[in-house]
Amino acid sequence: MEFPGSPPKRCAVLYGSGLFEEAAGFAVSLAAGAAVAVVSDETVAGFYAGRLLEALRARGLPAEPVVFTPGGEAGKNWETLGEVLLSLAKIGVGRDGLVIALGGGVPGDISGLAAALCCRGIAWIQMPTTTLAMADSALGGKTAVNSGGAKNLIGAFHQPSAVFADLDTLATLPTRHLRAGLAEVVKTALMLDGGLFELLESSPRDLLDHRGPRLRQALERCARLKAGIVARDEREAGERAVLNAGHTVGHALEAAAAPELLHGEAVALGLLLECRLAERLTGFPPEGTQRLRRLLNALGLPTAVPRSLDTSRLAELMSLDKKAKAGKLRFALPATVGNPFLRGGEWTSPVELDLVMDLLKD
Amino acid sequence: MEFPGSPPKRCAVLYGSGLFEEAAGFAVSLAAGAAVAVVSDETVAGFYAGRLLEALRARGLPAEPVVFTPGGEAGKNWETLGEVLLSLAKIGVGRDGLVIALGGGVPGDISGLAAALCCRGIAWIQMPTTTLAMADSALGGKTAVNSGGAKNLIGAFHQPSAVFADLDTLATLPTRHLRAGLAEVVKTALMLDGGLFELLESSPRDLLDHRGPRLRQALERCARLKAGIVARDEREAGERAVLNAGHTVGHALEAAAAPELLHGEAVALGLLLECRLAERLTGFPPEGTQRLRRLLNALGLPTAVPRSLDTSRLAELMSLDKKAKAGKLRFALPATVGNPFLRGGEWTSPVELDLVMDLLKD
Repeated sequence: MEFPGSPPKRCAVLYGSGLFEEAAGFAVSLAAGAAVAVVSDETVAGFYAGRLLEALRARGLPAEPVVFTPGGEAGKNWETLGEVLLSLAKIGVGRDGLVIALGGGVPGDISGLAAALCCRGIAWIQMPTTTLAMADSALGGKTAVNSGGAKNLIGAFHQPSAVFADLDTLATLPTRHLRAGLAEVVKTALMLDGGLFELLESSPRDLLDHRGPRLRQALERCARLKAGIVARDEREAGERAVLNAGHTVGHALEAAAAPELLHGEAVALGLLLECRLAERLTGFPPEGTQRLRRLLNALGLPTAVPRSLDTSRLAELMSLDKKAKAGKLRFALPATVGNPFLRGGEWTSPVELDLVMDLLKD
Repeated sequence: MEFPGSPPKRCAVLYGSGLFEEAAGFAVSLAAGAAVAVVSDETVAGFYAGRLLEALRARGLPAEPVVFTPGGEAGKNWETLGEVLLSLAKIGVGRDGLVIALGGGVPGDISGLAAALCCRGIAWIQMPTTTLAMADSALGGKTAVNSGGAKNLIGAFHQPSAVFADLDTLATLPTRHLRAGLAEVVKTALMLDGGLFELLESSPRDLLDHRGPRLRQALERCARLKAGIVARDEREAGERAVLNAGHTVGHALEAAAAPELLHGEAVALGLLLECRLAERLTGFPPEGTQRLRRLLNALGLPTAVPRSLDTSRLAELMSLDKKAKAGKLRFALPATVGNPFLRGGEWTSPVELDLVMDLLKD
């Protein structure tokens, strides 16, 4: 006797300006009078929750804020998730209710996991307010919290019904965060699109202006590349792993150096180190590593690990990586600028921890 | 731009005796050398965990026990789930790891949700050791914990890769629990299969003997009926709701009378009350209610609510039910013995709480 599986689901993604009204209109079509929770951290709630709640209530939706503290990676844990879930229950968010994640990667990850777990999965919308979330974390349905020192160890795949990326919200994003998020754009270009990489190289400064057309174009191109991969491999059985480039080292660096490095900064460093790994393992050209270093510099992203880094803690954290298979670390590596390395049907390569640590000490 | 959804997945279901070896063999094909966690409560672990761990280790799998306390409905909460997840991490259960749920409904629900959340979803196997789990809760991929007083408020749909129902394990199940689980068989028959209902009526005593063929036949027939429904409606968008018959009142009764009623006993009472509701709302024949009462009596299941019941607490609990839509309670009701009531494409009917409370006071 056999039991069957889940039906597919689609998610609309929109980049633009002035999208709050549009998001509220879409929420009405999803929630139709049921309770709506707008989930964000204190900072983002202070800037934008009022505006979104107003737009939702003007359309007759009983919308309430859920604000969690502390924001940032430190708050992305089991306890915060439990509190958000209790808040959803108090507001009366049931099966036909709706969660709107308003903010960067952390509110997105927590809200999405709360939506995945509330009544075994309810509808949710993402409104990313950071370049990082717009380029990467709001797309593709990965949600998670950290646990026992390991990043995103607890989570779910739960596609949002829509992503509204309002670039106007980047006006309140600190420049350092705006730059950090671009590391995900660089990652996507490095692994999948040599043309996009050249575009980034040609005018890196333009990417830092959220009102100009260049950033929006780059984000949309990124999203389109990711959509293609997620369509073929939502659950990361294979190909989707290429989007983890920079993240195997990056996640560990982020945790080991916390709170010194932002996620995107750690990914930038991770990409650089993984390109050097790739030079040895995949024949990645050293010029590629140089191009990456120049681009990261031009974007104001770090290219050297913090001096204070505890390397033994780093090694320990890497060995906890979810992608480890039969005890070995697995890295998604580039073959050339714009193309991932693929061998024997495998999108990741086994790497000895010692080799990674040697390169780090250089 | 659109993002896509999840691929379907299949789950093999097997009823029989001496299935521990078979389960261990299947585990090898899934985990292939990676860490395996055998999750159960103290009672079941004492009886069967050793045997299963031995069978797994004999096949070269690094298998470790995860035992949670307290067992029973009271332990099915957010804190226990968090502890089980930490244990999985400590054992080193990663993406390619495996969870085996060994026990009744509570270990099944907690283990399944832990498997759903570990690394965003890893493989798991169910080995139900109660009639309740064999007839219902181990099948269909529903996993959950209770929260804020409401049953199964936090959960996920996560199909196991296989269900091995070894009827030998029922030898250690207290008779009261064996009887209670049969309420789920009665429910399935009442809603979906008049022939099965007659079979149950024809020799109820035979169902209490786990070594005889009758119980296994009834469980298999139940599973087949459920498989058909889950195939058409895994996420309970519609038809699957018929399997909640008896549960809307049952869940609330179970919580309000805790720990006096077992889940199955509460479901038996819920079925009886919902048949009386159905008499008024769907034209369900009063003879059907009488047949149900006789069958429950013959199976040693309760037909009257405990005198000590706090009815105001019960009303409060029912209003928290996940299936409430736009604030109204929704009941899956029978039309006749063996057929669910369906009107205007809806598998559940709106019911005023007052009507339910009136019937309860009778």
